Amino acid sequence: MKIAFQGEEGSFTEEAIIKQFSNNCEKIACKELIEVFKKVENNECDYGVIPVENSVEGTITESYDLLLESKLKIRNEINLRIKHYLLANKKISLNEIKNIYSHTQAFGQCKKFLNKLNVKKIPVYNTAASVKLLKEKKLLDSAAICGIRAAKLYNMKVLAERIEDQKNNSTRFFVLSINDSDITGQDKTSIIFSTKHESGALYKILKILYESNINLTKIESRPTKLKPWEYYFYVDFEDHRLNKNVINSLDKIKENTMFMKIIGSYPKSKD
Amino acid sequence: MKIAFQGEEGSFTEEAIIKQFSNNCEKIACKELIEVFKKVENNECDYGVIPVENSVEGTITESYDLLLESKLKIRNEINLRIKHYLLANKKISLNEIKNIYSHTQAFGQCKKFLNKLNVKKIPVYNTAASVKLLKEKKLLDSAAICGIRAAKLYNMKVLAERIEDQKNNSTRFFVLSINDSDITGQDKTSIIFSTKHESGALYKILKILYESNINLTKIESRPTKLKPWEYYFYVDFEDHRLNKNVINSLDKIKENTMFMKIIGSYPKSKD
Repeated sequence: MKIAFQGEEGSFTEEAIIKQFSNNCEKIACKELIEVFKKVENNECDYGVIPVENSVEGTITESYDLLLESKLKIRNEINLRIKHYLLANKKISLNEIKNIYSHTQAFGQCKKFLNKLNVKKIPVYNTAASVKLLKEKKLLDSAAICGIRAAKLYNMKVLAERIEDQKNNSTRFFVLSINDSDITGQDKTSIIFSTKHESGALYKILKILYESNINLTKIESRPTKLKPWEYYFYVDFEDHRLNKNVINSLDKIKENTMFMKIIGSYPKSKD
Repeated sequence: MKIAFQGEEGSFTEEAIIKQFSNNCEKIACKELIEVFKKVENNECDYGVIPVENSVEGTITESYDLLLESKLKIRNEINLRIKHYLLANKKISLNEIKNIYSHTQAFGQCKKFLNKLNVKKIPVYNTAASVKLLKEKKLLDSAAICGIRAAKLYNMKVLAERIEDQKNNSTRFFVLSINDSDITGQDKTSIIFSTKHESGALYKILKILYESNINLTKIESRPTKLKPWEYYFYVDFEDHRLNKNVINSLDKIKENTMFMKIIGSYPKSKD
């Protein structure tokens, strides 16, 4: 089984893959999120795993924009607890550090810790890539923020543990493939739509879901990019798209929107 | 009149300030968005101008998170058309460029142009700061993405014009101060709320607005950061908070939410 993901070995997405599939798979690292989509669309990989949302920093908008364009379906969701560590090539004290490398989302998730230090934050495209860079360039005045898996993998010193602001920091990932999942009885469905140009347009869609007793778990807006201040809505709700109640509601939503797309039904993450 | 903003001279926020206030003001550049809030809260500046949303890249989430914590009010909104240029210290051809410096949002807004080049994208905290860096370090194999104001200000060569993917690329800014604006008859109001833990909670809030004929112009969700997958909703709608109809609706919304905060009423941007 081949699974595409963005980042490097030791990244949180790799941790999410291991959580979902154990280590019985070949993990294909991609530089860009769009490559993950392409590798699954071209059948080079069976699945792609992408981060979609962090419980502190919010939606990974690039993932959302790519879901709009792609024909891939969501097959699973994975929730992963995020624990950040400060790593370096050798044990130095915190006030000796001049630069900290990491993903911008990691900086956002460790703001309180970082505000106490007088360091330059240097963004890298992936947390594990920041550790790799530190190692390869043999930097001794710098540290990287990453998960503990990277510390072990790259044999780094841990300067500080659990430096995330919120101890209940989680990231939600989607497993993408050509098809979505069968009904399990504990499912969620994700859709994207754009509303008609009339007053109460969004209200009317939420009314359809409410009157069908369908429980909305998330709503997110993204610019259409076509015309300023017009939006696509990304809505997640409980129940499978093949459930009769949901079929009826989705038909009504289709009638009441300019555009509607089902990105898939999948079993709810257990945590 | 003193106006705080994040970035450097020549940035788009500075352009927005000039559009709103002409050049009759003292512009105080801050490194971080939070400093802009602090300078107005401490009465060091009369106003602060912050970017809140781009019509291609979406919400500037850091601004939204700071609005939640702050006591400042929105006094005006400014919509600014964003035009990106590729600037360098000397006229070189596109294939000689090895690195491009800019804000990550600018990279996102010029994706199609950048995908044709084989360059390293180096994120800088502000577009104008990327030009300043190029100039100061006298880099000759690098370029920066910025507005035309920075080209003139720093006397740079223009290598490519209007490189943004979408020609109707706009950024929306808020003017913050201690008080919001008086009624003009063409107003908008922004609020933040968190819903009760019951089914249809968001639907019930939108119902209140719909039944009062209040036109919602934007809805955005942000994580509460307190508990994973719980959200604050940021809603903009037409009409002033002192309008009788709005007063009644806001009272009902307050009754039906866990938390509700009015961030201000302000005249609608004319474009």
